[in-house]
Amino acid sequence: MSVTVPKGFRAAGIAVGLKSTGKPDLALVVNDGPVHVVAAVFTSNRAQANPILWSRKAAEDRSARAIILNSGGANCFTGDFGYETTRLTAQAVAERLDLVADDVLVCSTGLIGTGDQRFRDRIVGGVPELVARLAADDAAAAAAILTTDSVEKTATYEGEGWSIGAMAKGAGMLAPGLATMLVVITTDAVLDAETADRALRRATAASFDRLDSDGCMSTNDQVTLLASGASGVAPEEDAFADALAGVCDRLAAQLQADAEGASHDIDIEVRGALSVEDAVEVGRSVARNNLFKAAIFGNDPNWGRVLAAIGTTEAVFDPYAVDVWFNGVRLCHAGAPDRPVEECDLSPRRTRVLIELFAGEATATIRTNDLTHDYVHENSAYSS
Amino acid sequence: MSVTVPKGFRAAGIAVGLKSTGKPDLALVVNDGPVHVVAAVFTSNRAQANPILWSRKAAEDRSARAIILNSGGANCFTGDFGYETTRLTAQAVAERLDLVADDVLVCSTGLIGTGDQRFRDRIVGGVPELVARLAADDAAAAAAILTTDSVEKTATYEGEGWSIGAMAKGAGMLAPGLATMLVVITTDAVLDAETADRALRRATAASFDRLDSDGCMSTNDQVTLLASGASGVAPEEDAFADALAGVCDRLAAQLQADAEGASHDIDIEVRGALSVEDAVEVGRSVARNNLFKAAIFGNDPNWGRVLAAIGTTEAVFDPYAVDVWFNGVRLCHAGAPDRPVEECDLSPRRTRVLIELFAGEATATIRTNDLTHDYVHENSAYSS
Repeated sequence: MSVTVPKGFRAAGIAVGLKSTGKPDLALVVNDGPVHVVAAVFTSNRAQANPILWSRKAAEDRSARAIILNSGGANCFTGDFGYETTRLTAQAVAERLDLVADDVLVCSTGLIGTGDQRFRDRIVGGVPELVARLAADDAAAAAAILTTDSVEKTATYEGEGWSIGAMAKGAGMLAPGLATMLVVITTDAVLDAETADRALRRATAASFDRLDSDGCMSTNDQVTLLASGASGVAPEEDAFADALAGVCDRLAAQLQADAEGASHDIDIEVRGALSVEDAVEVGRSVARNNLFKAAIFGNDPNWGRVLAAIGTTEAVFDPYAVDVWFNGVRLCHAGAPDRPVEECDLSPRRTRVLIELFAGEATATIRTNDLTHDYVHENSAYSS
Repeated sequence: MSVTVPKGFRAAGIAVGLKSTGKPDLALVVNDGPVHVVAAVFTSNRAQANPILWSRKAAEDRSARAIILNSGGANCFTGDFGYETTRLTAQAVAERLDLVADDVLVCSTGLIGTGDQRFRDRIVGGVPELVARLAADDAAAAAAILTTDSVEKTATYEGEGWSIGAMAKGAGMLAPGLATMLVVITTDAVLDAETADRALRRATAASFDRLDSDGCMSTNDQVTLLASGASGVAPEEDAFADALAGVCDRLAAQLQADAEGASHDIDIEVRGALSVEDAVEVGRSVARNNLFKAAIFGNDPNWGRVLAAIGTTEAVFDPYAVDVWFNGVRLCHAGAPDRPVEECDLSPRRTRVLIELFAGEATATIRTNDLTHDYVHENSAYSS
């Protein structure tokens, strides 16, 4: 159970043949109200899929009653035909639920360039069955949005009389910018649209935006928060925002743990930065350094590659006064080697790199993964 | 023969035990004049090795008589001790050649953090033999600067009575920013320091600066041009600059062809950009996209990953009006799939990606490589 934990939501997931495996590939989440608040953040990639273009417009009035999601095709760079497919998909859902098309958001994930007539027919043709299956049980919905993911990603939170539910997918092209992957979050808390929007932006900035598995930003990322108000309880804004941040953080950790081909989950904590922006820039420069990532795969605590990476940033610090720790062992201090690398054990999957800049008080943690043979294999044609 | 092709230069290379293989690891190039012009560009990484700090200062007066280079240790992040090692190295060469230390530039390459007492003793202790071996034959010098390189990289140019010679190393951490790798270029043309500097900056900007094999900028990159004036011939500035640009371009191609673990040399040509800067930004965004690079390894012409990459840039263009060609086949046109991917053969090592932005007249080509199992293997601890 995930998005149907809060009151006022139904969901469903079915297989319509978009995935060659025959697994579920079409999901629907419906907000039965009494209110229909939506807040959403989208990929900041300028190359945006048709469902992003549609959902951005449909969410402008901050109201949405349903969201339909498919795997098995990104419907990105599929031209006017692809945009019409998205519109027809929303239209089909709206007709069955007695709504207008603008009440329905659409998300797609899969191969860019996929979205032909067969793709359209399967989705639009599947809507009647999908709507018929709607229930307060969403197990099939969480499965239907997966692509190369190996496990479902869900998180819930129980407040005082209200709750949050969420489902996510994402295993590759995992470097969100102001948005991420496909995530649907539901709540039965009583929220106005502004509160929902503020809380969602704060939560995503500190969670998905600091996940950088492979440096590759998707064209289809979308995080959607739907609020039904069905609990009748209006939590304090801070309480709701903190709870939402916690849910997003747990989903981000699940995405990191299931990243394509990874053998290490690496948390890069940057301390002593002059600003959070500096801390994020420094952490991200390491997360995107292939030499660093390959070294971690080989259980090699190669601190020199950390310093070479952070030296390319504009952040305020003295490169010769930085401390670098790997899994609790300080390997570099004051511009020179410190403890012997042999003291550092990188065999566990969980890896912690700490970079102390001595430039201020700000801190941030970037989550990434190592660069492995399996990553190369899964993302080369050999795997498809 | 490379750097000793021009008149007025001697070189040598010997093994002093910095490399565990016993191969040559210490090289020296001496400019016997009559003039001793130097121009140099250095890594723009803020994390800079001790030899970079030294050489930058020593080249400030635009005069240098010798350059000593070692492989087997980067002498970067080795503290004050490491800087003193560099100074003692220059001093040892100066004493044997009756110069002052500031006449001697120093370059180092190898593992960051390497530069202890043994490292110092071997280099400084090797200088007498190195000087004794100086000759107008530089084969050992070109070998002595290699690390993971599999072949020597040299290039020469014969002008009307004057010539250029050059040697280079570089196989990993290959993404120069305003400089690159270790490169020594010699010429016997009569040049003033300003002309040499202008020509070198123009040549490196269009060659090494557009090589981005793995997105990882080194701490030790240095390109040095030494001019002896020994030919007595003063070429036109444009003739010299064009010749130098050609030499740098051929070296950049050799570096690309020998990149660690690569199975494809990928030239990403960006056309129709509003500015050269835009073209470079667009090309580099693709060159640094791991998903694109893994797809090429698998001979998969995944044009969607090209569009997802360029969509993250600030360059001026409409993502839905871009053409993308792989090896002469137009796979994307006007925001939709064009020719079938089956028409595209990516089995040859040489790979050409053409991106037509339709935004202006500027063009640039970025050279990169694919992301392979061998790259991961060579850069993980398994290989060391």
